[in-house]
Amino acid sequence: MTLPMIPTITAFERSPDGGKGLARDMRVRWALEEVGQPYEVRLVSFTEMKASAHRTLHPFVQIPTYEEGDLALFESGAIVFHIAERNAGLLPDDANARARAITWMFAALNTMEPPIIDLGIARLMEGDKPWFEQRLPVVEDRIRIRLGELSVRLGDADWLDGAFSAGDLLMVSVLLRLSRSGILDEYPNLSAYVARGKARPAYQRAFDAQLAVFTGKPSSG
Amino acid sequence: MTLPMIPTITAFERSPDGGKGLARDMRVRWALEEVGQPYEVRLVSFTEMKASAHRTLHPFVQIPTYEEGDLALFESGAIVFHIAERNAGLLPDDANARARAITWMFAALNTMEPPIIDLGIARLMEGDKPWFEQRLPVVEDRIRIRLGELSVRLGDADWLDGAFSAGDLLMVSVLLRLSRSGILDEYPNLSAYVARGKARPAYQRAFDAQLAVFTGKPSSG
Repeated sequence: MTLPMIPTITAFERSPDGGKGLARDMRVRWALEEVGQPYEVRLVSFTEMKASAHRTLHPFVQIPTYEEGDLALFESGAIVFHIAERNAGLLPDDANARARAITWMFAALNTMEPPIIDLGIARLMEGDKPWFEQRLPVVEDRIRIRLGELSVRLGDADWLDGAFSAGDLLMVSVLLRLSRSGILDEYPNLSAYVARGKARPAYQRAFDAQLAVFTGKPSSG
Repeated sequence: MTLPMIPTITAFERSPDGGKGLARDMRVRWALEEVGQPYEVRLVSFTEMKASAHRTLHPFVQIPTYEEGDLALFESGAIVFHIAERNAGLLPDDANARARAITWMFAALNTMEPPIIDLGIARLMEGDKPWFEQRLPVVEDRIRIRLGELSVRLGDADWLDGAFSAGDLLMVSVLLRLSRSGILDEYPNLSAYVARGKARPAYQRAFDAQLAVFTGKPSSG
């Protein structure tokens, strides 16, 4: 008998967001909770993250990573896809519906996230630059273009293409990064979409688990 | 007998890059050429791209799209993945090696491309802004951090993880966007890596095909 393999992911020992669930381990935790896969977490400090052992796991010196026996992965999108491919619940069985769900995964990460990250970088790294105030509305308007397009496509549907999928998991995760900005409130159907994602029991379990790292309170998961 | 299904992709009628192969249809053409899949191209003008027929295909009003019978996809990463999954040649057979190749696909699009796109946006959309000159080196240094990390990981290998894969196809495509900037020349192993990608016969066929749209000369493909 082989014991089931429990994957290990990495997360920040002290996340820059202080437990708001915006670090990228949250996406992987959420995916693991959706499919009911237990997992271990190894917390890494910023010093440990830059050391060669972690750099071997993650060439771009970030979290999360994913280790499962001989397999080591990085990039939250790739890890979520790996989990979705090996377990039921995050990708439809129908081949065409599956390809469309994967399309939304890439759309979340390659079309929607970059302008949103740009806003985060502007705030975090360019807040003290002379151009910050003038450039901010330009960056925000770029996000609004994408949100407007997404809002039209979503319409009054619950999820982007039929049942909840890994595409929705990543899109909601990406949109959550806008929470503090208030921009999302301009698109009521997108706000409701994000609220639906957050209301999922698997999201809640994942959120509690990442928050417990900061409060020191063991999560219920 | 069923005739083989020939997919149709969309591309710019007049690409902003004038046929330098930097528009995202090039990635899809390259993938199709690598696996030997014939394809049709429907050229769209900027006016057509904004019309509702194209918007139904691509909610973010871009190219390329991919149509194959009942299936319609957008996002170049998702289309390349679809081609790689349905045909031999772009993803390894071994399950772990396959997961690692997919990791590089996501790394190319979600870690490496965003700062490179940011440079393109700065040049194209913010070139006349008062902050442009001061901000440019900040943007370029962000790219250098990622290139330095990628350069260390690649070392003297030909490709990112064993044989050429869809991960290399997307990474080379993303790095090609730096051609004009000269930044890539600071990393000789990455320059050589990109040159190896461009030297592949499938890349050449794809490049000639997209260039033929501009020269009016039919491609040999």
